[in-house]
Amino acid sequence: MTRAYAASGPGAALAPFDLELPPLGPDDVEVAVEHCGICHSDLSMLDNAWGTTRYPLVPGHEVIGTVVARGGNVRTSALGQRVGVGWYSRSCMACRDCLSGQHHLCADAEGTIVGRAGGFAERVRAHWAWATPLPAGIDATTAGPLFCGGITVFNPLVTGGVRPTDRVGVIGVGGLGHLALQFAAAWGCEVVAFTSTPEKAAEIRGFGAHQVVDSHDDAALQKLGRSLDFILSTVNVPLAWDRYLAALRPNGRLHFVGAVLEPLQVPAFALISSQKAISGSPLGAPATVGDMLEFAARHKIAPQVERFPLTRVNEAIAHLRAGRARYRVVLDVAG
Amino acid sequence: MTRAYAASGPGAALAPFDLELPPLGPDDVEVAVEHCGICHSDLSMLDNAWGTTRYPLVPGHEVIGTVVARGGNVRTSALGQRVGVGWYSRSCMACRDCLSGQHHLCADAEGTIVGRAGGFAERVRAHWAWATPLPAGIDATTAGPLFCGGITVFNPLVTGGVRPTDRVGVIGVGGLGHLALQFAAAWGCEVVAFTSTPEKAAEIRGFGAHQVVDSHDDAALQKLGRSLDFILSTVNVPLAWDRYLAALRPNGRLHFVGAVLEPLQVPAFALISSQKAISGSPLGAPATVGDMLEFAARHKIAPQVERFPLTRVNEAIAHLRAGRARYRVVLDVAG
Repeated sequence: MTRAYAASGPGAALAPFDLELPPLGPDDVEVAVEHCGICHSDLSMLDNAWGTTRYPLVPGHEVIGTVVARGGNVRTSALGQRVGVGWYSRSCMACRDCLSGQHHLCADAEGTIVGRAGGFAERVRAHWAWATPLPAGIDATTAGPLFCGGITVFNPLVTGGVRPTDRVGVIGVGGLGHLALQFAAAWGCEVVAFTSTPEKAAEIRGFGAHQVVDSHDDAALQKLGRSLDFILSTVNVPLAWDRYLAALRPNGRLHFVGAVLEPLQVPAFALISSQKAISGSPLGAPATVGDMLEFAARHKIAPQVERFPLTRVNEAIAHLRAGRARYRVVLDVAG
Repeated sequence: MTRAYAASGPGAALAPFDLELPPLGPDDVEVAVEHCGICHSDLSMLDNAWGTTRYPLVPGHEVIGTVVARGGNVRTSALGQRVGVGWYSRSCMACRDCLSGQHHLCADAEGTIVGRAGGFAERVRAHWAWATPLPAGIDATTAGPLFCGGITVFNPLVTGGVRPTDRVGVIGVGGLGHLALQFAAAWGCEVVAFTSTPEKAAEIRGFGAHQVVDSHDDAALQKLGRSLDFILSTVNVPLAWDRYLAALRPNGRLHFVGAVLEPLQVPAFALISSQKAISGSPLGAPATVGDMLEFAARHKIAPQVERFPLTRVNEAIAHLRAGRARYRVVLDVAG
C-alpha cells in the first residue's frame, strides 16, 4: 500500500488514501516522491472540468523524487537517481511522433493523473523515458513546477525557432509566465512582459523583462506595432488578439500555451499581409525536458515557489484557487 | 505617351488610354509588355474593394516583357532581357525586411497597380529587383500568372518548411490551386486536393493530386484525421476550419493565401493539443520568385491559361468574373 491524498468526487476535499499501485512494468521506474508541485491542471482534474477524471483522484504531476525500483527494460536512471515526472508518464514509443522525438504529441500518451494516480503520494511510477534525471545545480525543492509549467513555456522557444536576436513578448506573469520571462531572457532575447498588474513592474523586471506593458492598454499595445518576433500567451482569458498580432513583426508568431476557452477570432488578412502565424503547443518531449533542465541549471533559472507540507494540501489548493500563489505551489511530500 | 487600357471609375469598362509614365528612375527598368495575366486582385482594384484604387486605373500585375530601357543603377537585366513583374514593383531595399531578403514584407513596398499604372499597357516600369529574368524553359506566353498566383502558392512551401516527405493538402483548384498542386507534387509530396467540384477529379489529378476530396464532405474530411502536414487554402469562402485542423498531423499547419473575409474562429485548444499552427502569407521575395522560375522550368510547371488580345480585355474580365477561367487568363499585349 502507498499512502496518498485523494479526492472522492468533484469538489471534495483531499483526504488520506491508501493506494494500490499496479504491478511495476518492465519499462517502469518507481519514484519515492519528495516534492510535488500543484498546477492549475490539478484543479481542473479535481473539478472534472475536462470530463476525464476518475475518482478517487490522486492529483500531482510535477513530481520530484528518487528511483527506488526499476523494471527489467529500464534504460536510464539507476536506483537512487533523482528524477522528475511531469504531465505525461508514458507514451507508446512506437508511433511516428514518438519515433521522431515528439513523444509529447503521441496520441496514446498517458497523463500522470488521468485514469491513474499522481504525485500526491509516497510513490509514483512512470515509463523510464518520462522520468528525467535532475542534473547538478537543480534544486529539488523547487524543481517540480519545471516539469509541467516550465516545459510548457520552454518548449515553444525550441519548436518555435526563437533566436537570441528576437524580441519576445510574454502575456501573463503567473506560474507559467514568470518562468517564460526567465527562459526568454536567458535565451538572449529582448523581453516584453504583458501583465494585468503593471504595478508589479519591478518584480516582473526581476524575472528578466526589459519592458512591462499593461495587457489591456490599447495605446501601449499599438505603440509596439511591428516590433515583436514571438509572443507567448500564458493566460486563459480572451484579450484583443488582433492588437497582439499587430504588435508582431512580419514573420511573427503568436503562440498559445494558455487554453483560452472562447475561440480565437482571427481575420485571415491579419495573417496573410505580413506572413504571420498563430500556434499552440502542449508540454514538451523528453529530450526537450532534459535540455530545459541543463539550461535552467546553467542560467540559475528556478520556479519561485511557496511550500506546504502534504498534510496541508487542502490549504495549498485553496491558496492556488484564490490566485494568491507567488508564483507556484510545491508540496513537501517526504518527511 | 504609352498606349494602355484604363477604367475611369468603379464598374467602368476599360477603354484605350494614353498614359504618361513618370521619369525613369535610376533603379528602374522599363519593360515592353508582351503578355499580362488577369488576377482576381485586378478585379478587386477595379471595384475599389480595398479603398486603395486611384482612377483612371490601368490594371495588370502579371507582366511578361523585355527590358527596353535601364536606369543608371540597374544591377540586372540587360537590354532585351525577358523579365516578369508581379504584384510588387518596388520595395525600399533598406529596411530590416528588405535587407533580410524578405522584400515582400517591406512596409513600403509599392503595388504595381496601386497609385500607379500596371501592365495593361505597352510599357511598365519596375525596380530592377522586382523585374525577374525568365530562365530558359519558361514559356513567355503563359508565364505571367506565375508572378502573382504562382509565387503566392510557391512561397508557402519555402517559408513553411514543407519537406518532400510531407503530405500536403490544397484547398481550392482554381487559378492558385492548380499551380499549388503542380508545385507540391514536384516538391515530392503526397498531395490531396480539396475541391467543391469533385466531378473534375480526373483533371485535378492531372495537376498532380494523388487524392481528390470534396471540400464540404465532413465524413471524408474526418477520415483524413491526423494525416496531413501542411494544408494550403487558396479559397476565399469560409469552410469548416476545425475539420481541416483535425486533418493535420501533430505539428501540422493550416496556411492561408486566400483572404477569407469572415474571421477564422479557432479554439486555442485545437492548436495547443497537437502543436498546430495557422498562418498566412502574401506573394514572395525576389529570390523566391527566381527559385520558383527555375523550379517551374525544371519540372515543366506552367499555368494553364486562356489567351485574349488586349483589345478584348473587357470580354476577358467578364470571363474571369463569371468564374469560367480555366484556370487563368492572359492578355496578349504586344502584336
